[in-house]
Amino acid sequence: MKKLLNKPEDFVDEMLDGIYRAHPEVTHVAGDLRCYVTAAPVKGKVGIVTGGGSGHLPTFLGFVGKGMLDGCAVGGVFQSPSSDQILQVTRHVDQGAGVLYLYGNYTGDIMNFDMAGELAEIEDIQIRTVIGNDDVASSVVGEEHKRRGVAGIFFIYKAAGAAAARMLPLDEVARLADKVRGRTRTMGVALSPCIIPEVGRPGFQIGAEEMEIGMGIHGEPGISREALLPADAVVDRIMDRILAETDYARGDEVAVLVNGLGATPLEELYIIFRRVSQVMEGRGVTIRHVWVGEFATSMEMAGASVSILHLDDEIEPLIAAGAQTPFFRHFGE
Amino acid sequence: MKKLLNKPEDFVDEMLDGIYRAHPEVTHVAGDLRCYVTAAPVKGKVGIVTGGGSGHLPTFLGFVGKGMLDGCAVGGVFQSPSSDQILQVTRHVDQGAGVLYLYGNYTGDIMNFDMAGELAEIEDIQIRTVIGNDDVASSVVGEEHKRRGVAGIFFIYKAAGAAAARMLPLDEVARLADKVRGRTRTMGVALSPCIIPEVGRPGFQIGAEEMEIGMGIHGEPGISREALLPADAVVDRIMDRILAETDYARGDEVAVLVNGLGATPLEELYIIFRRVSQVMEGRGVTIRHVWVGEFATSMEMAGASVSILHLDDEIEPLIAAGAQTPFFRHFGE
Repeated sequence: MKKLLNKPEDFVDEMLDGIYRAHPEVTHVAGDLRCYVTAAPVKGKVGIVTGGGSGHLPTFLGFVGKGMLDGCAVGGVFQSPSSDQILQVTRHVDQGAGVLYLYGNYTGDIMNFDMAGELAEIEDIQIRTVIGNDDVASSVVGEEHKRRGVAGIFFIYKAAGAAAARMLPLDEVARLADKVRGRTRTMGVALSPCIIPEVGRPGFQIGAEEMEIGMGIHGEPGISREALLPADAVVDRIMDRILAETDYARGDEVAVLVNGLGATPLEELYIIFRRVSQVMEGRGVTIRHVWVGEFATSMEMAGASVSILHLDDEIEPLIAAGAQTPFFRHFGE
Repeated sequence: MKKLLNKPEDFVDEMLDGIYRAHPEVTHVAGDLRCYVTAAPVKGKVGIVTGGGSGHLPTFLGFVGKGMLDGCAVGGVFQSPSSDQILQVTRHVDQGAGVLYLYGNYTGDIMNFDMAGELAEIEDIQIRTVIGNDDVASSVVGEEHKRRGVAGIFFIYKAAGAAAARMLPLDEVARLADKVRGRTRTMGVALSPCIIPEVGRPGFQIGAEEMEIGMGIHGEPGISREALLPADAVVDRIMDRILAETDYARGDEVAVLVNGLGATPLEELYIIFRRVSQVMEGRGVTIRHVWVGEFATSMEMAGASVSILHLDDEIEPLIAAGAQTPFFRHFGE
């Protein structure tokens, strides 16, 4: 295992200590480094809480900040946070307007968020839940509820955060988050595995000339293991699958996120975006917003994913709105 | 070679095509994708031109934008741009107030920038030059002019860009850039090599349990090759070397950049920052500004560097000022 760390069991808490030292805009509550919240809560605003395993920076905690989320319950590497941690964050984040739970579709997270939500409602905190399930490779059309949440949750964070910042009520923030969820599709490709610090060896193997299309961000099996293709061919495979699920009319607009899984250089992500742009051009679809970089990683895994959000007039301004977190800055329009 | 690309010889130009497609704030001139400039030049402002080899994103071109640089001549992977490309960018960037050349200390770059500068002066464009040489591992005290420029050039970009944005004259922008140059120190550690696409194999080897302290961003030899140490011990080695060169008084302020070389996860960079923060705390030095992330990479190389800028009252506001490029956003104070 070739990592810059101290004791593997301290990986998450030392990372969090580093983040709090670097960024006074965020803090922790309940005496637990893993109960991560904004230092500047807004009275009367709907609170948005996310959570999930560590190892995906800037997901999940990196999107806590102005115009986005209010708190994050931080789990161990690839592990769910506890229901108690989620509850502690919820209590802090509630500013009288209720709390939206917004996280990815993983069994452990669902169980713990549901439990925390029940306890929060006993304390008269209104809870709504939206679960990201953008990974088209993880289940077929008609069984979208079985799909994993991956990088595309960024778009839901962005839109829900902007809706909450406009002081919209809880049900409306939840409706908009769910609308963006339903219009977001992601597919990825992995070229190399990653290593959980406390395990110390790769979770799976990929041959020197192989890639796995559709692999999940924890190494979950994808659609096919095959010889490494040129970048354009990889993108075409991804886009074929995503576009097959959406009816685009000429002139429609999308937001695109090309996400690096950790070890893939930014240069390659722009080569990928180039092809995404060509494919969309061919369809007559306009790319209105673009982000290229590392948004949901798997530590040192090599690979990338493409997320497409089908915009409409209601969603677009929420994506365009300004935001400022220690890990994400957008000046807005 | 496990990369997401098409033909290796198209790597740089397809990357650039992707960047121009994603970011209309930048464009190219002289019919050459590698002559990269801001799309919004400011009349009467000192222009700042950088340049260097590809493979280091977001360095160099990523810092072209509001409050930072105006143009970048883009070379092949780890290769200097040509003097003609630099001259073309210079002509476009000159807005009547002269042009500052600001780049890293590499022989090929110096030769080509000097040649371009001579030709530009024949065309009555005033040129000043500041050459980043922050890598303390690459030569001893007293021979700082032999040191390579690495991630710390970010601080010079930031300060010089802010000075130019205030419409200061060329000599003053150059003086401030040079002052920041003289107060910036960087040292890094590499854990794995990277592969130049057109070469197709690693430029050097590092054993499975080894690291190289002080290695350059193109794989230039460092100070020592040794067994991988815990993160805190690596940081202590780096900080000992950097701090030995600077007289800090208690209460002094610094800016810190913890830079990932490409494959090292953001989680690990924060573990590194944690230790940097502890070391500075022990010295009574205040960290006023912090950036943690990928600023000067070597494609998929694993490793990290720490850069320290010793602030003073003149420099600090330039570091604090807002900036907005496709690759770097800072809201300012």
